[in-house]
Amino acid sequence: MTSRTLYSLCGSDDARPFSPHCWKTVLSLAHKGLEFEERPLAFTAIPGVENGFSKTVPVLRDGDQLIKDSFEIALYLDEAYPDAPTLFNGEGGKALSRFVENWSQTQLHPAIVKIAVLDIHDMLDETDRAYFRESRTKALGRTLEEVIAHRDAEIGAFPAKLEPIRRMLNIQPFIGGDSPLFADYIVFGALQWARITAGVDLFGQKDPVRGWFDRCLDLHGARGRSVTAA
Amino acid sequence: MTSRTLYSLCGSDDARPFSPHCWKTVLSLAHKGLEFEERPLAFTAIPGVENGFSKTVPVLRDGDQLIKDSFEIALYLDEAYPDAPTLFNGEGGKALSRFVENWSQTQLHPAIVKIAVLDIHDMLDETDRAYFRESRTKALGRTLEEVIAHRDAEIGAFPAKLEPIRRMLNIQPFIGGDSPLFADYIVFGALQWARITAGVDLFGQKDPVRGWFDRCLDLHGARGRSVTAA
Repeated sequence: MTSRTLYSLCGSDDARPFSPHCWKTVLSLAHKGLEFEERPLAFTAIPGVENGFSKTVPVLRDGDQLIKDSFEIALYLDEAYPDAPTLFNGEGGKALSRFVENWSQTQLHPAIVKIAVLDIHDMLDETDRAYFRESRTKALGRTLEEVIAHRDAEIGAFPAKLEPIRRMLNIQPFIGGDSPLFADYIVFGALQWARITAGVDLFGQKDPVRGWFDRCLDLHGARGRSVTAA
Repeated sequence: MTSRTLYSLCGSDDARPFSPHCWKTVLSLAHKGLEFEERPLAFTAIPGVENGFSKTVPVLRDGDQLIKDSFEIALYLDEAYPDAPTLFNGEGGKALSRFVENWSQTQLHPAIVKIAVLDIHDMLDETDRAYFRESRTKALGRTLEEVIAHRDAEIGAFPAKLEPIRRMLNIQPFIGGDSPLFADYIVFGALQWARITAGVDLFGQKDPVRGWFDRCLDLHGARGRSVTAA
């Protein structure tokens, strides 16, 4: 029995955890070769976990340690398990992963919200649906239906956003170089979130980024494929 | 007398080298604390240098070594001078710098071309102007005047492209973390190119990215300020 628990996020089907940030942590733990029990939660259940430790997931309990935030968890794992494969490969890798994180969250995440926000809503149970609709309508300043009004155009515009990855793949197979690092899981998390919630094709024809994403899905016993596309 | 020569790029005024890639190398050499003589060349003079070693600059001669390409030069410098401050801070930093390089070249460079291409043309001597106009018209599929047709709109849209840096600056003062690495010089090179050729303001009001750029201009004896803005 493992003493390691990852609190993640799901809708009414707890076999379909979808949070981009939690997927980063799932692959981080798998990368380190660490066993863990994943406990997917509804949005509204998160504040009740571990005595209200965090308003967001992922939260990792590792023995008597509690850590929140996917980046903080990755830093913790490299510190706590230095003999397992590294997630950053040095201090430069840590710092530059912050650039990748902020690229993904400013360039990919907002577009995925405009594609998938109603799909996400529809995956939730009744209590979460009310919470999600109200909080997202307030945060986005529009109804969910208005947010996805240009969904098809957003899908069409998406492949261009991946151009930095596409060009980089001419040089190396992963953002981490010859093999993946946390930086790959950051971008993978965003695209896995889109895959599980909206199930739309966000790549171009014969897109090398699709090859990279498939390689990420195959990693660590094809952990990413344990949840099918919507 | 130093045996280290950096071949770079200039227009009719050899005191105003402007190439983004050469600026990456100028700061890389300064970062390593290495003395060098910079020899700015006209575009059409490049193929005649060092027995036609390269069609592009930067080219670094370091004793009996010749290296081209700003990224290759940075890798060489970290390998050849391991006791001087690192440009990558580990293998992860090297790999992720490739992502930063491709982000800059796919997101920033094309926009700067649409802003500055005619300014660059006007900085050149007569021979280079003819070469530049012909080669760029062919590469871009439009006249230089057509390329800059929406110059003001490109300038207005530019600050949004810097959003990944802007958000990252909430966490750390440089892409390299607490201090700059080659990844910072990659992005600096693009913005320094725009500063020297077009001289336009590409930042938002009270933009933290401006603070980062100013810090980069101040580095290594304010080397970046040795050429004034257009």
